[in-house]
Amino acid sequence: MQIGIVGLGLMGGSLALDLRRHGLAQKILGFDKSDEHKKTAKELGLVDEVATLEDLKRTCDVIFLAIPVEGIIALLPQLADIDPKTTIIDLGSTKERIVKACPPAIRKNFVPAHPMTGTEHSGPKAAVEGLYEGKIVVLCDVEQCGEEHRKRAEDIFKALGMQIVYMDAAEHDLHAAYISHLPHAISYALANSVLGQEDPKAILALAAGGFRDMSRLAKSSPDMWVDIFKQNRENLLEAMEVFKKELRTAITLIEEQRWEELRSWMERATTLHKIL
Amino acid sequence: MQIGIVGLGLMGGSLALDLRRHGLAQKILGFDKSDEHKKTAKELGLVDEVATLEDLKRTCDVIFLAIPVEGIIALLPQLADIDPKTTIIDLGSTKERIVKACPPAIRKNFVPAHPMTGTEHSGPKAAVEGLYEGKIVVLCDVEQCGEEHRKRAEDIFKALGMQIVYMDAAEHDLHAAYISHLPHAISYALANSVLGQEDPKAILALAAGGFRDMSRLAKSSPDMWVDIFKQNRENLLEAMEVFKKELRTAITLIEEQRWEELRSWMERATTLHKIL
Repeated sequence: MQIGIVGLGLMGGSLALDLRRHGLAQKILGFDKSDEHKKTAKELGLVDEVATLEDLKRTCDVIFLAIPVEGIIALLPQLADIDPKTTIIDLGSTKERIVKACPPAIRKNFVPAHPMTGTEHSGPKAAVEGLYEGKIVVLCDVEQCGEEHRKRAEDIFKALGMQIVYMDAAEHDLHAAYISHLPHAISYALANSVLGQEDPKAILALAAGGFRDMSRLAKSSPDMWVDIFKQNRENLLEAMEVFKKELRTAITLIEEQRWEELRSWMERATTLHKIL
Repeated sequence: MQIGIVGLGLMGGSLALDLRRHGLAQKILGFDKSDEHKKTAKELGLVDEVATLEDLKRTCDVIFLAIPVEGIIALLPQLADIDPKTTIIDLGSTKERIVKACPPAIRKNFVPAHPMTGTEHSGPKAAVEGLYEGKIVVLCDVEQCGEEHRKRAEDIFKALGMQIVYMDAAEHDLHAAYISHLPHAISYALANSVLGQEDPKAILALAAGGFRDMSRLAKSSPDMWVDIFKQNRENLLEAMEVFKKELRTAITLIEEQRWEELRSWMERATTLHKIL
């Protein structure tokens, strides 16, 4: 099987490493709109060859789209004349608008996927082996996929050691707002809260594991995350309002020194980890 | 040197392990108001002996107070008749009220310390080796400490592999509000945001590293954290207001689709990691 990867950053680069490690591709072709990414990906040996999008379309059995979500929407029309046998799998963090943007002519070829993995780093140099192993991948609206394409995507993700969860795109986007997009917004807001203080260096000198964990997501690429927030705007705003309400509850309880109610509020939060 | 530890949970238990590992104590005596903690600490071999507070006062060269911050304030008066040669070191997460609560008779004996370390777990079974190594410890208002006591505390923390930072108690509490107490409040609020949804299990099934990091602090003991929020109420409320304002900025930018400004807001947050 020849596999093409559009986007040679963290997600695409790591995917190339794992596809090769699991013997899933005879040859991996990579495409990126950035010349620097192409050069680095080749130097690091992430892909066998860098090629044009046309090369990928002409020669690959599977094409992965590992680019920011607005990029996926912009690119899909360019794949509208693809061979009916070619499978297209996107790895975008939002799904509803992407599914809607897929040209009807290739809807059967297209398997919308969201692997629940990543790091706060980006670019080809951020690529790491094992990024996908043991992680969850959400496949959306698969009833609209051609049987052979769905099966091919499932086989690849399973071979990468992933656990597949099925969901419709709308449900995915709502859940992703809470589990991924809201935490990113919070982490950026926390970082900016400290940076806005008189002497952030003195404060950050005291940072231990807790703060580092909470601010890690604030390293994430603004280019990528503006796009995600744009595409999942309504769900994210809803999740942010819910969070703001919880925060307001805590502020009120602390202001009014209602310590027993604050304790109950915290106790409720600790039950999360019985589920997680 | 004989060392006494009041409070045999995560902080006290881990301290016992590290004091022994570094050969800093001939004998470690432990006291806890919970019979169960005393029993477990003895079974796990964290301390050489469990004893009464009176035994610790009578026989130890150094007494560590590794209990919740309200407990430290309640306990300090009971140490007012301690031998002038005995050093008392607390490990509380707030400092100003604790320093004020120290009876003048033993102010020279008392070294207020805050080791910037911990985990989200609690109790003697949570004790781990190496919890203090390579971490920062803040010593507060040391100009009011007796020279020998300050030196003794510094020697112990250095021998544990810690880096000492000096600060006055008021400054410590303000910084700790941003670097530790606010992140805890946020983590509890995030956990409650998800738990308040219709089907938290379906959402949490998608949790990856980012969400796990952001919700980890929400496992922390409400008993301990209500006390900390109580003692650092004004600073914490100030930090929470600053954070709420950042969150509101993000919400407004997303609502009004001002994507370039959102990108700048995110870019600013990413600069945190040039300092951290």
